[in-house]
Amino acid sequence: MAVGLGPLSTLHPVPGFELGIASAGIKRPGRKDVVVMRCAEGSSVAGVFTLNAFCAAPVILAKKRVQGSVRYLLTNTGNANAGTGEPGLANAMRTCAALAQLTGVDEGAVLPFSTGVIGEPLPVEKIESALQAALDDLSENHWAEAATGIMTTDTLPKGASRQFVHDGVTVTVTGISKGAGMIRPNMATMLGYIATDAKVARSVLQDLVRDAANKSFNRITIDGDTSTNDCCMLIATGRAALPEITQASGDLFAKLKEAVFGVFMEVAQAIVRDGEGATKFVTVQVNGGATHQECLDVGYAVAHSPLIKTALFASDPNWGRILAAVGRAGVAQLDVSLIDVFLGEVCIASRGCRAASYTEEQGAAVMAKEEITIRIELGRGGCSETIWTTDLSHEYVKINAEYRT
Amino acid sequence: MAVGLGPLSTLHPVPGFELGIASAGIKRPGRKDVVVMRCAEGSSVAGVFTLNAFCAAPVILAKKRVQGSVRYLLTNTGNANAGTGEPGLANAMRTCAALAQLTGVDEGAVLPFSTGVIGEPLPVEKIESALQAALDDLSENHWAEAATGIMTTDTLPKGASRQFVHDGVTVTVTGISKGAGMIRPNMATMLGYIATDAKVARSVLQDLVRDAANKSFNRITIDGDTSTNDCCMLIATGRAALPEITQASGDLFAKLKEAVFGVFMEVAQAIVRDGEGATKFVTVQVNGGATHQECLDVGYAVAHSPLIKTALFASDPNWGRILAAVGRAGVAQLDVSLIDVFLGEVCIASRGCRAASYTEEQGAAVMAKEEITIRIELGRGGCSETIWTTDLSHEYVKINAEYRT
Repeated sequence: MAVGLGPLSTLHPVPGFELGIASAGIKRPGRKDVVVMRCAEGSSVAGVFTLNAFCAAPVILAKKRVQGSVRYLLTNTGNANAGTGEPGLANAMRTCAALAQLTGVDEGAVLPFSTGVIGEPLPVEKIESALQAALDDLSENHWAEAATGIMTTDTLPKGASRQFVHDGVTVTVTGISKGAGMIRPNMATMLGYIATDAKVARSVLQDLVRDAANKSFNRITIDGDTSTNDCCMLIATGRAALPEITQASGDLFAKLKEAVFGVFMEVAQAIVRDGEGATKFVTVQVNGGATHQECLDVGYAVAHSPLIKTALFASDPNWGRILAAVGRAGVAQLDVSLIDVFLGEVCIASRGCRAASYTEEQGAAVMAKEEITIRIELGRGGCSETIWTTDLSHEYVKINAEYRT
Repeated sequence: MAVGLGPLSTLHPVPGFELGIASAGIKRPGRKDVVVMRCAEGSSVAGVFTLNAFCAAPVILAKKRVQGSVRYLLTNTGNANAGTGEPGLANAMRTCAALAQLTGVDEGAVLPFSTGVIGEPLPVEKIESALQAALDDLSENHWAEAATGIMTTDTLPKGASRQFVHDGVTVTVTGISKGAGMIRPNMATMLGYIATDAKVARSVLQDLVRDAANKSFNRITIDGDTSTNDCCMLIATGRAALPEITQASGDLFAKLKEAVFGVFMEVAQAIVRDGEGATKFVTVQVNGGATHQECLDVGYAVAHSPLIKTALFASDPNWGRILAAVGRAGVAQLDVSLIDVFLGEVCIASRGCRAASYTEEQGAAVMAKEEITIRIELGRGGCSETIWTTDLSHEYVKINAEYRT
């Protein structure tokens, strides 16, 4: 039931970055569930990781190792290797060591990523036995296959690609992501991998991934449940025949930033469009806040309200639920008589109560659409924030009640 | 689908407190939707009210008037008179004035309460035309009828009653409540009315209602959506032949407090048991916190997680979702290696990961029950908090998607 999400568009290969997939049969025999990505020597890699205190073993390891030199990213689905304690950490290290041995790189140059059920022991042997096949499959042209290989409850693969030309050189930024539930990223999404052939130092790349994630992955929510396994990686292979890019590179940096932010936003929003049971793609825009935090507080109160989400599912312009959520968002000294609320372009509440011009038909017309914008004007200051979310449908309950059966 | 909630038990009349119901046809012709309660002259009345910034017109008025002398409580269902601005306030005043005129009391001695759809104009004439019938119906024996008259999406009326004897005098505490959705009270529930014939000064009564609500109504949540209309009132008519009760009354105060807290807890938990679509009654107990607030943060993260709520609905012991919720609750410097989690008496996670003794069968046996306790031991200090909530079922989505149709 993905909203406004079609088949993958063209994902341009990124010189110096290869992807290979294989089947380890972790959850179901024959399912492609292991993805290996190889970064050319000299690549810079940066990432952002979940802030969940129960972060998974692979996250603990990847977070540490990304500080050093990275050559391989190893991903499995079907098992999150989270809530598994010391044995989980040892298992994550074992799979990395196995890949390091097959490829002759340092063990520390392999970053592990896992997604799936929390709390089950990682099936290390199954993963190890699939590694050679994944390596044999490595190709710069396998982005689409990898986008499929990292899926769990996703119904469609997610990817985006941008190119720009600078001094006659074409630079590519391509990325993929996965995730449909346990989505309220707090640093990054469930899993996102974005690569470019630009040459960028790690420290600059780290700033880029942080800023881009903050405007994209960190502004989407499906169920409010921050995962234990969120990771978002940005890789720069440096193969494009251009000088190294820093914040001081002027126009070149601006072009790269625009391409990177564009890919981040597209793959982050794709997660919402494919949210569990989603029938609507909802933009919650909060303007006029005194601080960014209060805009986010209001936005998330609206985006997480099961009453609003079920009304969205029903295409019911039950706008009183929006007012109630704004009122309970915890904003200090909120003056409701300054607040306007819009559904699409329709003003539903003006100065804290039903707009005189509003008719139920106007609201119903907006709610009938697949893509809906709720705009809240707080009238307190100049800060704005935007969050993207889904509705709450019968299908959502069905998917999550039956997830392990 | 109310969980462990049967027909009303005996609700003892409270001398000096009468209730009458009538039909104004606000939402459906013939439905009993207006309730009038009369407090004998000299009664003390205290209350706690929603902290939602968009609090409804009747809340604004009742909050102010409860400071003075109160004789009548006037409740309507079918329309919340919230998000209605100045005209809403004028409408609330008009219905109170009409009741005052019929009964010859001061206008300020009437407190209004409304519950139902947010944002529609209050049908004042309909309510006015039902007032005389409600007055004619007044009786100390009409608690059960009033409990039914204040229902909206509730499937069963909710009430509780306690009596104690002091110096040969029987004192009664009886209360009723309503609410099944938009329930995360923040000061009180949707609507609760508890009366006693003890003699208690207003200031003492105010402390009692605050403390009792904090341990009961303010610890239940169904959907996390704090209502615009929450009110909980405690009335003391003073008709029992005993001296006035204060905190210095020793055993007598202790008995009253126990009875009041008992009634509050029973009618608050009844709201959860009758929560929209509820198939489970869930107790979330958080122990070992460094502060009460962090216990509440963890408890609400668990109680509001749609992933945990859908797993509860499915009777699926998917405990990884519990760990993930604890980990994202925002507790600073949370050491996950100190955390134990129990499902009923079964230890599912020990020191932050799956307990060695745990088997899926043990978890499934607990989850199969209608009443489930999730206990989280943080290992950080001596504070504890308990929250009561429901699961998230297909029925929940159905009820809230179709509420206005």
